[in-house]
Amino acid sequence: MRQSQFPIKTQKEAPKDELSINAKLLIRAGFINKLAAGIYSFLPLGLRVLRQIENIVRREMVAIGGLELLMPALQPKDNWQQTGRWESFDALFRLQGVDKKDYALGATHEEIISPLTKNLVLSYKDLPLYLFQIQTKFRNEPRAKSGLLRTREFSMKDLYSFHANQNDLDQYYKKVESAYFKIFAKCGLGEKTFLTLASGGSFSKYSHEFQTITEGGEDTIYICQKCKLAINEEIFPLDYSNNKPQNSSQTERNNSINNQNNRLPNKTDIGTKRKNPTCPACGSSDFKKAKAVEVGNIFKLGTKYSAPFDLKFRDADGKEKIVIMGCYGLGPSRLMGAIVEVWHDEKGIIWPKEVAPFVAHLITVNSQRSAINNQIEKTAKTLEAKLEKQGVEILYDDRQDVSLGVKFADADLIGIPTRIVISEKTLEKGAAEIKKRNEKKAELIAINNLYKFFA
Amino acid sequence: MRQSQFPIKTQKEAPKDELSINAKLLIRAGFINKLAAGIYSFLPLGLRVLRQIENIVRREMVAIGGLELLMPALQPKDNWQQTGRWESFDALFRLQGVDKKDYALGATHEEIISPLTKNLVLSYKDLPLYLFQIQTKFRNEPRAKSGLLRTREFSMKDLYSFHANQNDLDQYYKKVESAYFKIFAKCGLGEKTFLTLASGGSFSKYSHEFQTITEGGEDTIYICQKCKLAINEEIFPLDYSNNKPQNSSQTERNNSINNQNNRLPNKTDIGTKRKNPTCPACGSSDFKKAKAVEVGNIFKLGTKYSAPFDLKFRDADGKEKIVIMGCYGLGPSRLMGAIVEVWHDEKGIIWPKEVAPFVAHLITVNSQRSAINNQIEKTAKTLEAKLEKQGVEILYDDRQDVSLGVKFADADLIGIPTRIVISEKTLEKGAAEIKKRNEKKAELIAINNLYKFFA
Repeated sequence: MRQSQFPIKTQKEAPKDELSINAKLLIRAGFINKLAAGIYSFLPLGLRVLRQIENIVRREMVAIGGLELLMPALQPKDNWQQTGRWESFDALFRLQGVDKKDYALGATHEEIISPLTKNLVLSYKDLPLYLFQIQTKFRNEPRAKSGLLRTREFSMKDLYSFHANQNDLDQYYKKVESAYFKIFAKCGLGEKTFLTLASGGSFSKYSHEFQTITEGGEDTIYICQKCKLAINEEIFPLDYSNNKPQNSSQTERNNSINNQNNRLPNKTDIGTKRKNPTCPACGSSDFKKAKAVEVGNIFKLGTKYSAPFDLKFRDADGKEKIVIMGCYGLGPSRLMGAIVEVWHDEKGIIWPKEVAPFVAHLITVNSQRSAINNQIEKTAKTLEAKLEKQGVEILYDDRQDVSLGVKFADADLIGIPTRIVISEKTLEKGAAEIKKRNEKKAELIAINNLYKFFA
Repeated sequence: MRQSQFPIKTQKEAPKDELSINAKLLIRAGFINKLAAGIYSFLPLGLRVLRQIENIVRREMVAIGGLELLMPALQPKDNWQQTGRWESFDALFRLQGVDKKDYALGATHEEIISPLTKNLVLSYKDLPLYLFQIQTKFRNEPRAKSGLLRTREFSMKDLYSFHANQNDLDQYYKKVESAYFKIFAKCGLGEKTFLTLASGGSFSKYSHEFQTITEGGEDTIYICQKCKLAINEEIFPLDYSNNKPQNSSQTERNNSINNQNNRLPNKTDIGTKRKNPTCPACGSSDFKKAKAVEVGNIFKLGTKYSAPFDLKFRDADGKEKIVIMGCYGLGPSRLMGAIVEVWHDEKGIIWPKEVAPFVAHLITVNSQRSAINNQIEKTAKTLEAKLEKQGVEILYDDRQDVSLGVKFADADLIGIPTRIVISEKTLEKGAAEIKKRNEKKAELIAINNLYKFFA
């Protein structure tokens, strides 16, 4: 892609109303555009990153048997009344149509997928079933100040699993956990992301979140220094080892009217390290406190959403039983924000390879001699064409009216993993200068070897 | 894909509240699920078709220089007030957030892309610019009774072009017209789809629609029998050859409060053929009347949406000028409905090859002898694996508890273009029986030749 043809206008200053690092950098570098608080457009550069993340997520969902579908954002009030959440779910956008009917904008899809699945699941032979979508969700957020980490409209992958019994759910739940870690690793967040005990879940007292450590996060977690299990602050002072069933769910955790607040810790009792509770996994009481952002969550729902919709199946013994459910959320757009929070320096973003908008950023250095200039340009275009033929997409900064300093600064701000520079000096050696965005040193590589380098 | 693992539950009867052929067949065959009037979920089988169509559209948009972005569905009232459409656009869903701010649900995106583009277009060097998205749109429809042809939530491709002058817009407009015909041809609607003069457009008196002839359509068009240009009934009795500028736009055409009605023809003056007006393209007055569905539209917007947002550029002469715009809509989900309206018979859907959910439907016929059965199954699985390795995705009906008659009926209902049958009889000849969904006769093809057949 030629930069002169691609609409990237970088900005020196971040918008004053943006407080978060991810929003500041993503806006300055031309990835997103702010429409209103908590509502962003993904510009061509930004959409490339979002799609990379979505495709990573999609591949891992398919790998664990997930079948993709697409459910509506516009959802009848009836469905939400069936579970009592029309009244209790604060973050729901509600609206009325000209048909005088009330609708919710989908903040989650349990109320839609449970009745839908009644048509697909008749007997135990139809189970287990794993359905997921990557779809736009809406949350009526009172405040939205963390860039892509908390928005009113966002991309969400929601997977729902349907089982004949709890044992089957338990096994699949483990599979999803491991698929999630593969996703976070591919997004460059593997080492910063921790499985975290949190409130919610119907079958078990706690649900599991995936929390990525970053100062930009809104959550606080305590990480066991021995086994690396983390515990969300909201349940940290409690006795989390008591793993018996209770009623609550992920979506209600965000509501002010549920009884979540009386389980929140007293703010004054938080230190950098806590020695008091013991880790339910390993027994250690050595914890480290960290700010974090929730990048995924998984829940054993049990029959909480299947029962209200009478979602049953005929078991091998001929008896009708209620389907057991699990649900598993992961937000690609939030993940994009989290990646920037973790991967940046004072110059700009540093995209991990697998989510980067382009593999390499090609910059040419103008020479004083026009014959050399022609040769530089010709070499750059040949390289571009050959790499693209090879399936390697690069961004070629062919802008004529921009100084080299600006080109380098833009490249650092945009954060494509590898920078290729072709100049009179490098051409003399039949080479290009290669520099990784996350390294200081540059190296010369023969142009003929670049094809192998990016293979 | 194994059918036993894929959630398709066909239904003998169509839901009683569905009147349209496309909704009846798509629901019966397991492609979509009705959530409410005008609101459908795309089941895994249906999403495969929708994605095929979206990818056909995407490729053609990229081929004419389109850059993909993604804009929000949640849109501030301010933007819509700027153009006066907050009040005048009837089909807009309006809602209020907990932030006490009013939002519209995007029915179209001129009000978003015009201010957004201010950041991308500074000088004439940044023009032309072509931005498109494939995104979910919402329309507050008073009635929704045509299945996927008219829904409250739908998939839409909207392309916006930005130009320095009208000549540039005119040239690009022609390019889009030809890209659209490529899309409709790939979707199997090439011969049934006509460029149609309709009301709307800012620079020209008329806009252009693409109308596909089908009894299920809500529009009526008059097709010139000589040059094949069509004219929408809404402007047919008028003098459409007078091509001077006027004020109106595509979106307002759906509103009851604009002055559209006084240009509607008198219903009593419509015959099967009209000899009165002459075709503005060829002068013929031989027209044929037909019911049709609008599958796309293209508009020369001029400065209608750039002026209210002060979208300017500095021209080569140093002067600031208002950007000239065009917009181009095409609905993949509506297209899916239109394809079914055109391509079906009494047994079910007949998908055109390029949009089909699978390339072939493989069915095995049980034999009385279990040794033969094993051989049939082994042959089927080998064929499936080899074809998939070749990139040919097939649906293998491996269901054990279903009769052959049901399998054949399901295959006809689902409408995958090619059916492969392996039985004791075909195996004796080392062959499989191949039948096209749109043909009566079947033929035997040696199994070893099938790989070439599908290459």
